[in-house]
Amino acid sequence: MTAIPEDADTTREAATREQQVLERIDRVRRRKARLREDHITLCHGAGGKASQTLIDAVFLDAFHNPHLDPLGDGAVVGDHAFTTDSYVVTPLFFPGGDIGDLAVNGTVNDLAMCGARPRHLSAGFILEEGFPIADLRRITASMAAAAHAADVQIITGDTKVVQRGKADGCYITTAGLGVFDHPVRPSAVAARPGDALIVSGPIGDHGITVMLARGELDIHADITSDTAPLAALTAALIDTCGTHLHTLRDATRGGVATVLNEICVAAGVAAVIDEDAVPVRPAVRGACELLGIDPLYVACEGRMVIAVAPDAAQAALAALHAHPLGHGAAVIGHLTEDPPGLVLLRTAFGGTRIADLLVGDPLPRIC
Amino acid sequence: MTAIPEDADTTREAATREQQVLERIDRVRRRKARLREDHITLCHGAGGKASQTLIDAVFLDAFHNPHLDPLGDGAVVGDHAFTTDSYVVTPLFFPGGDIGDLAVNGTVNDLAMCGARPRHLSAGFILEEGFPIADLRRITASMAAAAHAADVQIITGDTKVVQRGKADGCYITTAGLGVFDHPVRPSAVAARPGDALIVSGPIGDHGITVMLARGELDIHADITSDTAPLAALTAALIDTCGTHLHTLRDATRGGVATVLNEICVAAGVAAVIDEDAVPVRPAVRGACELLGIDPLYVACEGRMVIAVAPDAAQAALAALHAHPLGHGAAVIGHLTEDPPGLVLLRTAFGGTRIADLLVGDPLPRIC
Repeated sequence: MTAIPEDADTTREAATREQQVLERIDRVRRRKARLREDHITLCHGAGGKASQTLIDAVFLDAFHNPHLDPLGDGAVVGDHAFTTDSYVVTPLFFPGGDIGDLAVNGTVNDLAMCGARPRHLSAGFILEEGFPIADLRRITASMAAAAHAADVQIITGDTKVVQRGKADGCYITTAGLGVFDHPVRPSAVAARPGDALIVSGPIGDHGITVMLARGELDIHADITSDTAPLAALTAALIDTCGTHLHTLRDATRGGVATVLNEICVAAGVAAVIDEDAVPVRPAVRGACELLGIDPLYVACEGRMVIAVAPDAAQAALAALHAHPLGHGAAVIGHLTEDPPGLVLLRTAFGGTRIADLLVGDPLPRIC
Repeated sequence: MTAIPEDADTTREAATREQQVLERIDRVRRRKARLREDHITLCHGAGGKASQTLIDAVFLDAFHNPHLDPLGDGAVVGDHAFTTDSYVVTPLFFPGGDIGDLAVNGTVNDLAMCGARPRHLSAGFILEEGFPIADLRRITASMAAAAHAADVQIITGDTKVVQRGKADGCYITTAGLGVFDHPVRPSAVAARPGDALIVSGPIGDHGITVMLARGELDIHADITSDTAPLAALTAALIDTCGTHLHTLRDATRGGVATVLNEICVAAGVAAVIDEDAVPVRPAVRGACELLGIDPLYVACEGRMVIAVAPDAAQAALAALHAHPLGHGAAVIGHLTEDPPGLVLLRTAFGGTRIADLLVGDPLPRIC
């Protein structure tokens, strides 16, 4: 991140400098993704710049097709949405949730972000020899409860077992199938200059909770994961805003800043965020300060970023506030035309900094 | 397996003994599945009796619903089929294939076994830190080729990375979506007494190939995996036999014997198999003899078991023989009413033995 101070006396000079910085960054960002590494690193799974390079250079290169290429939270095929996510969170159990409800809610939310109504899930388990069956029962009970809460059914599955030392207890991959009952198809490319940007609640709870649950840091805070199904919330937004609802993205790996970057690049717009307007719980902010992490990059598992036409913003906010999971929703900024692809953060001190994609992730394996 | 000799002089006595043995086995088999273990063992992932107990006692117990409960190769919802499988094969590359085409063909085949036309796949990757990117490219190229051959698209995906020592290079979970263009819904419960049982080609090639590729045994044989997409073959069978086609099951983990057991239990029928009629390549038979394994329990990844009404059997066989992947198809036996749930093997020596489910698997991690 580059801090660009603003000062009334040197506005023009600062503007020129800012322009130069932006142009330099833009040149770097336009370079074709090139994978420099020979081996996979933890950064490749972090959802940031290294992940995107891997996806571009390996997965899109091999699989590219019109459904995959938009890289949304899920793929839209006719009146269905289809998505998958693997879950490798450690520890498996943490305050407010576990790998089981995470694996259900995460996939439910990816379908909801496409604007679809989640209906059916699959679940593939990779278990390590020696894993306690009591823990597996706890995880499946938690998946069943999450599926019930989200009104989806787990209808097909698979179990594999690998030798001791070849996994970390339990990994789960869920895939999800959703249907469209309406013509609204929110997507990152649909975001428009002028759109209001809303987050549906306080950010970073999940990532910080999981980090602290590892017990490696001597920090204690009264925080629980925000893992939750967002489909009821997205359905309310679609009812309220219709096609004025442009974009829905859940802020998982890489947090709100990463999602904003993806929206700006996809739509060719800029985001201007008022840092003070971003809701962050004091305990999360405190833990982030101790860890040297910006809460904008910390994963949530029950929060989303919404881009909505300016005229519909207040109605969207009201619809969110009417729901327990959207109670803490807030407008955090807006989209503008220039500079395309960048997320600008107006800081509390009156400055502007660029919230770029991180290469890696300060908090690995949080989902 | 219990060997029950037959002799012309003592037929009645042998029949009584056989009846007693069958009744005893039946009593044991009817007991409600009870999970005795406290921890996951490799047997729980083997596709045999231990796997079924785990599925009954943990997964069905938590998730049960009308789509999941039939435990087919996939779930049928309206005019769609949905399925998932995780792949943890070791080694990742073996003669005739790798984890990539296995992950595509396996899920394509699960859809084909439902009678559906496979269309879209998802792919979730769990990668170990340090995994060579060249290997990942080789795997994704092989997935792309397999998807092209099976006329499916990989339209959504996810990548997670875990620390060194928390996985074994690369695990892949694919989910698949297929459509029905016809009213035929083959399933295990649809099998009927009198049906002919057909296998679509020589069995056991995949399992033995992977086992030998590990290099732990000083056995060398000219065998390659049979991994292949079966949807063209199942479409031909549906065209030829229509609703006379009762059951399709690909003989993966646990091999042909396990699939036959599943069909017999689901449909409440018995299978009578002529051991001599089961096609097994000499190299596979030789390796099996050296390893002390029955080829009937060795996994295939491009072979299926078919139950078809007796009048349609010859037409089904002709349809299979017309296709390169069904060239070696053979009738191996038939279904009968009694004793329900059992697979009886008429041996080359004129005896009968029961081919029961194995508890575990002599060949772990072959898919």
